[in-house]
Amino acid sequence: MSNSRNMMNYCPDIKVLDCTMRDGGLVNNFGFTDEFVRDLYKANVAAGVDYMEFGYRASKNMFDPKEFGKWKFTDEEDIRAIVGENNTPLKISIMADAGRCDYKTDILPKKDSVVDMVRVACYVHQIPLAIDMIEDAKSKGYEVTCNIMAVSKVSGNDLDAALRMVSASPVDVLYLVDSFGNFYPENIAYMAKKYVDSMAGKQAGFHGHNNQQLAFANTIEACRRGVNYLDATVNGMGRGAGNCYSEMLLSFLKNPKYAERPILDMVSKHLLPMRAAGLRWGYDVPYLLTGILNSHPSSAIKFIKEGRTDYSRFLSELEEMI
Amino acid sequence: MSNSRNMMNYCPDIKVLDCTMRDGGLVNNFGFTDEFVRDLYKANVAAGVDYMEFGYRASKNMFDPKEFGKWKFTDEEDIRAIVGENNTPLKISIMADAGRCDYKTDILPKKDSVVDMVRVACYVHQIPLAIDMIEDAKSKGYEVTCNIMAVSKVSGNDLDAALRMVSASPVDVLYLVDSFGNFYPENIAYMAKKYVDSMAGKQAGFHGHNNQQLAFANTIEACRRGVNYLDATVNGMGRGAGNCYSEMLLSFLKNPKYAERPILDMVSKHLLPMRAAGLRWGYDVPYLLTGILNSHPSSAIKFIKEGRTDYSRFLSELEEMI
Repeated sequence: MSNSRNMMNYCPDIKVLDCTMRDGGLVNNFGFTDEFVRDLYKANVAAGVDYMEFGYRASKNMFDPKEFGKWKFTDEEDIRAIVGENNTPLKISIMADAGRCDYKTDILPKKDSVVDMVRVACYVHQIPLAIDMIEDAKSKGYEVTCNIMAVSKVSGNDLDAALRMVSASPVDVLYLVDSFGNFYPENIAYMAKKYVDSMAGKQAGFHGHNNQQLAFANTIEACRRGVNYLDATVNGMGRGAGNCYSEMLLSFLKNPKYAERPILDMVSKHLLPMRAAGLRWGYDVPYLLTGILNSHPSSAIKFIKEGRTDYSRFLSELEEMI
Repeated sequence: MSNSRNMMNYCPDIKVLDCTMRDGGLVNNFGFTDEFVRDLYKANVAAGVDYMEFGYRASKNMFDPKEFGKWKFTDEEDIRAIVGENNTPLKISIMADAGRCDYKTDILPKKDSVVDMVRVACYVHQIPLAIDMIEDAKSKGYEVTCNIMAVSKVSGNDLDAALRMVSASPVDVLYLVDSFGNFYPENIAYMAKKYVDSMAGKQAGFHGHNNQQLAFANTIEACRRGVNYLDATVNGMGRGAGNCYSEMLLSFLKNPKYAERPILDMVSKHLLPMRAAGLRWGYDVPYLLTGILNSHPSSAIKFIKEGRTDYSRFLSELEEMI
């Protein structure tokens, strides 16, 4: 694999993963209608998307199912109600959050599940737990990723130590995650090389956030540096500033199996009405400011919810917290 | 100058040019209130912005002043009513559009004007006319740029021929202009090198559009490749998908003279109310599609104005026109 790909290449190694329901679920508390989910599944199949993430597999002991939509838990039967046996080329993933799931009991053996891939999300201090989760899912027969969150806040040699531990595990894909939308493309070039190099013989992935309107640009940059698993969401739907837009990424990639039209139809039919009904995601000034300051978007979400527009003062408040 | 700058560097050669009134004027027919213009001027001074473009110097023989706001014409006395003698470090520019201005008569000698820079905009087939305009403005005492528009549609050796002609002229700055928001950062890296190399001993600039949410990313990429004159607009206000956001660019640049706070205050005080009053600019799906297809945004502007959201069909319509 060359260090820097040419964008005119057709790279069959590249995989697009739609995580609209998982990251977008953080916008609507996982309250997607069955019609939405069915249409999204069909659109992803038609668009040539490689993986679709249906949601989190959260612990029902820690989170009350009455307080969330069903895709916070993503039960096997709920997925099957949409996809049947999933006789399509599209693979299915779920996300298991370290410390927020009962993975030993709630993740079935692969032979009993329509899920193909388990994505283990963790913070850098949870790597030992994540490795236990990776080993558990791998031994059950799944493809497994490790998505280390908030790495723009990890200093010194902690990240290198974490990457060594993860690369020695049976994981298939290691994800670079820009949780706060803090990275510039130049940072991505550096970090992607680190991740790709550490995963020799395995794969690297990228998951971006759009705080500085760089989610797509950073995804392209990661791709140029040999990162093969690329996350995207329809219309960028995801927490706060959202993610890389599927419609941008699919039109950029040169593999003829990808088509942006089914995704455009999803935007017309579902995403625009969801926005019109009051759901909010995507770039806005407060997200730029938390992104620049490498902060969690929760304060920006609160700022917007309160109807505030005094951005300078918000910047001062953020600066007092760093 | 190194071929690829490190973003932590403090580069005193970099200049930020605010063209909110010129490109944003295409959104509101140049109908800015005097209060807006005065506040923008003060904000740019306070933010350390290097140049502020007040508008076009269009021909009153070709365009009826009754049909446009005054910044389509940007008379000397209208600028002076805002800036007086402009006793600030901020320089003032106007744009002269090839074939749409009476530059010989309407551009005064520099000694009689508060304008510092004339930016000559042209298409590649107008280079001989542009060079006459450059020579005229230069001989009158101005800093002069040449902004060749729509170069993403110029094939073969026409662009190289144009760059040779412009670089042999007395121009100070040659602008790479991504009129249709068609370029990816990888294209910018290639084109910026071409422009910078062709302008040895002079300067290169970049003006982006945000059709693919890449205006900021492309501006950064151009900057890394030695492009020093960077266009931006407050809140990205500009035709169609708009431009690189000033608040993003200023927070990215490391020169301590730049401050994003005065720009944030402009957004709070003026840009949000303008949006609330119905003015539209910024990323939207139709602009993505014209950007991908390297088309003029006018069809997308019309599509949006008509309230259409059938994106797939719009894509088909565009494909029939290329």
